[in-house]
Amino acid sequence: MVTFFVDVMGGDYAPDEIVRGVEKYILETKETDFSIKLFAVEDAIKKYKDLLKEKSNVEWVVADSFIRMEDEPVRTLQQNNKTTIELALRSSVGVRESVVISAGSTGGFVASSVLTLGLIEGVRRPIIITSIPTLNGATTLLDLGANMEPRLIDYLIYANIGKIYAQSILGKQEPKIGLLNVGEEKGKGPKLIQDAYNLLKNEEKNFIGNVEGNEIFKGIADVIVCDGFVGNIMLKAMEGVFEIIKSKLLERFESVLKSNGASDIYERCQEAMRLFDYKEYGGALLLGVKGYCIVCHGRSKREAIANALKKGYKYAKSGVLEKLEEYFHTNQKIKSSLS
Amino acid sequence: MVTFFVDVMGGDYAPDEIVRGVEKYILETKETDFSIKLFAVEDAIKKYKDLLKEKSNVEWVVADSFIRMEDEPVRTLQQNNKTTIELALRSSVGVRESVVISAGSTGGFVASSVLTLGLIEGVRRPIIITSIPTLNGATTLLDLGANMEPRLIDYLIYANIGKIYAQSILGKQEPKIGLLNVGEEKGKGPKLIQDAYNLLKNEEKNFIGNVEGNEIFKGIADVIVCDGFVGNIMLKAMEGVFEIIKSKLLERFESVLKSNGASDIYERCQEAMRLFDYKEYGGALLLGVKGYCIVCHGRSKREAIANALKKGYKYAKSGVLEKLEEYFHTNQKIKSSLS
Repeated sequence: MVTFFVDVMGGDYAPDEIVRGVEKYILETKETDFSIKLFAVEDAIKKYKDLLKEKSNVEWVVADSFIRMEDEPVRTLQQNNKTTIELALRSSVGVRESVVISAGSTGGFVASSVLTLGLIEGVRRPIIITSIPTLNGATTLLDLGANMEPRLIDYLIYANIGKIYAQSILGKQEPKIGLLNVGEEKGKGPKLIQDAYNLLKNEEKNFIGNVEGNEIFKGIADVIVCDGFVGNIMLKAMEGVFEIIKSKLLERFESVLKSNGASDIYERCQEAMRLFDYKEYGGALLLGVKGYCIVCHGRSKREAIANALKKGYKYAKSGVLEKLEEYFHTNQKIKSSLS
Repeated sequence: MVTFFVDVMGGDYAPDEIVRGVEKYILETKETDFSIKLFAVEDAIKKYKDLLKEKSNVEWVVADSFIRMEDEPVRTLQQNNKTTIELALRSSVGVRESVVISAGSTGGFVASSVLTLGLIEGVRRPIIITSIPTLNGATTLLDLGANMEPRLIDYLIYANIGKIYAQSILGKQEPKIGLLNVGEEKGKGPKLIQDAYNLLKNEEKNFIGNVEGNEIFKGIADVIVCDGFVGNIMLKAMEGVFEIIKSKLLERFESVLKSNGASDIYERCQEAMRLFDYKEYGGALLLGVKGYCIVCHGRSKREAIANALKKGYKYAKSGVLEKLEEYFHTNQKIKSSLS
């Protein structure tokens, strides 16, 4: 029985698109063993509660306030308000197969989740992980923005977290590990990345070396590790390219095709385009805390939220958290390097 | 009179595509006041010299060897071979309106150019700069991979270099400056980037704040500054998205359109797609050394090389180098911070 804890107030299009996303998930999912708790301030609850009132597995929870995008994560924690995200996280503690979802401030979500859920033993800071489509399947990327300044040992930890994710979620038995860098050859990049290369070379039998930005999509690596700064910027830049192509190209295609009476072809083109739309991916997983937290894009609309719930269900059933706990519990090398 | 010094041996498709690119430029350009010197090893000269033999403004120069992609830049310099890129650079010294072009190892090119041409007074390390198309024109990005670990003051220097480039090459009088970061708000990113934000805020009247990866294409900033590590990875990731879309999407469109007898529509779709093709952009400019050096992508084919010459001609006529020298000569704040 999966329980979703959804921050209705987080994100550029909250609360409207968040509620619509939840509604969309309920209407479309084939799963039945789930319930949803929605966390919002009173005004929003008044406005939206009728929308989902016939759903017996939906419950609204009132919060005092919510974290705004411009709030500094640490300050919001110090104030110790009962914000939607904090209430959602607290309510999830001790609930089996629980999934917390927010499209609000990533920094606020990460900080609150560490404080409320706690870290898996051996983890210093959580990471953000997701997989993106490639020419021959999917590649798992981490960290996408939780830790801006990782240490050397973190690259080895990331490689292992990525491996466990790729095995549990994508079913890859022996994932190939790559290091995001500016060139294929050894000796490229900043000093820390050169050291990370050597560390991974020595410690990871499935390490395939450096992977450049343009090689991600070729699927040569199943897992690609990087720091949260470059990971976040890179992922968003890729979205940006997609959006400019969509806006400039697809609109031009549409007018050409429709004026030629070929609307059916346009439908098929749109379908192909959807493959690359971040809206279809529905957020990334925060790994390292004791619970499943899905960090959605600030610009998430209903499709993204619905997909975040869909992904969340899969995560909750995957056992990836238990495997991660097991890994940190048994891996002496990592443990000693952290002590 | 522009003189091109082309490293024929650098790049994944060298020497063939480099020579074909030069040929393409000569056939297509409307300019007449230029000459081209081609640097290659003896075998390559034998093979290709007939191709361009009727061009009176083309001259071949024989070199002992060339830098391979896997060579470490510093080691190649220590060996002090007469490599193609070094000979090209040395030959360009003292030649007015000279442009050196290579698709070989970026690290080797940067290191050799610093040693051979020297740095503009006040510049500590050169940067790589280019502009990319946006929804409302073009945005200038730097650094794209010359300096992996800039200091705080470099962000201010980059802002000014970018400004001079945008003014000289793109004709923007008051370019808006942005800082590449993981969020729009102040206080985002690693410590160095937060400090860079504050520095730019205090020193640059046209600083508009942080720009996220997905915002680059919206054209909200005319110049976006970042370190060479994230800049290089981001640019290549953007190319990667373009390529996967092209390969998966355009091929599908093609088969749909051609089987519907709509090949003319496909032509127009292709034309739109070309807007986003890095091959059309022909390399980036290395700024900070005393000369125009164009760093082409390792995967450059003839179109990219032809466009690099086209861009090089424009650079040589732009006077951007003189403006940069003037800036470093007169800007006391930068000078004192460097001493």
